[in-house]
Amino acid sequence: MSQTLARPVSNLIELLSRLPGIGPKTASRLTFYLLREPNGLAEALSTALAALSVGTVLCQRCFNIAEQSPCPICADLSRDQTLICVVEEPMDVLAIERTGAYRGIYHILHGALSPIDGVYPEKLRIAELMERVRVGEPREVILATNPSLEGENTAAYIYQQLQTSGVSITRLARGLPVGGDLEYTDEVTLSRALEGRRSM
Amino acid sequence: MSQTLARPVSNLIELLSRLPGIGPKTASRLTFYLLREPNGLAEALSTALAALSVGTVLCQRCFNIAEQSPCPICADLSRDQTLICVVEEPMDVLAIERTGAYRGIYHILHGALSPIDGVYPEKLRIAELMERVRVGEPREVILATNPSLEGENTAAYIYQQLQTSGVSITRLARGLPVGGDLEYTDEVTLSRALEGRRSM
Repeated sequence: MSQTLARPVSNLIELLSRLPGIGPKTASRLTFYLLREPNGLAEALSTALAALSVGTVLCQRCFNIAEQSPCPICADLSRDQTLICVVEEPMDVLAIERTGAYRGIYHILHGALSPIDGVYPEKLRIAELMERVRVGEPREVILATNPSLEGENTAAYIYQQLQTSGVSITRLARGLPVGGDLEYTDEVTLSRALEGRRSM
Repeated sequence: MSQTLARPVSNLIELLSRLPGIGPKTASRLTFYLLREPNGLAEALSTALAALSVGTVLCQRCFNIAEQSPCPICADLSRDQTLICVVEEPMDVLAIERTGAYRGIYHILHGALSPIDGVYPEKLRIAELMERVRVGEPREVILATNPSLEGENTAAYIYQQLQTSGVSITRLARGLPVGGDLEYTDEVTLSRALEGRRSM
């Protein structure tokens, strides 16, 4: 096979296969698509990929990916700077921003605790969060890590660390997803939804 | 959303979304993966994409994508140069090579006839095939276009054009699932189809 494929082609297929969710077949399909695509998409992608690390920095306050530090959210004084939402990844910020329901600021951990994968507290931006809380004295920290084992452990760990700080600590509500079906909801989610029931 | 995303990030997401089978969510996931991937995958991909068009040419005999013309298959004199297998796309060559059951050479059309999409005979490498047959006088031309409507029409068109040339014209045996895609056919089925090719 190697003999029949031009090296630039097999090289791109190999690199694309390293991306999550992209196997060798998809990688081939994308490569040959790029080869016949007439509008310079390959060149545009090449430039965009080169700009990715050069053109971005981590906001030194919330650790979101941004063009400059502080990021536009941290620099926006119309937002509530005393409300910090703690998330695992930059993509979580996007998800919350899309709701339009949040006007505070963020703190991105860049992962969740997972000792089995070697992700200990030192690997995450937890110390930086402690420092922010100590210096900035926010009124509330919302722990918006994922409702997964790692996310729950991370939230529990941060909760322990912040307990003595006097700040109000909340966690996103657990319950039935909107548009979901009670019949098909798993037992754990349903238990949480029952526990968290509110008067109408 | 645009305000909360660094431009190099949103730019890469937008470009990746133009790839077939990649929607905005997958594009975001890939972009953020590349941002945290520590081994310079983004840079390697950038370089590979830039090299894609610069480092490849079309073989001026079979029109396969190669590093030089003639391509390694056309230049390989141990292969049967009197047997030409006509395929739609470069990926089809890979699929046939993987069977190990074919020792002839190829002709890549770069598409299939589809008048509704504006793909007329002039858009494909059909005239070049006619010239190859006229000058080279091969003993057999195997029409290995896809077993789809467009592929069948393309084979029928080429058959008509070659009928008076005296060359033996064959078509891959039925056994390929109708409506399927040659590129995704397993090696055994494809080998059988090659063995069982029949005179048109």
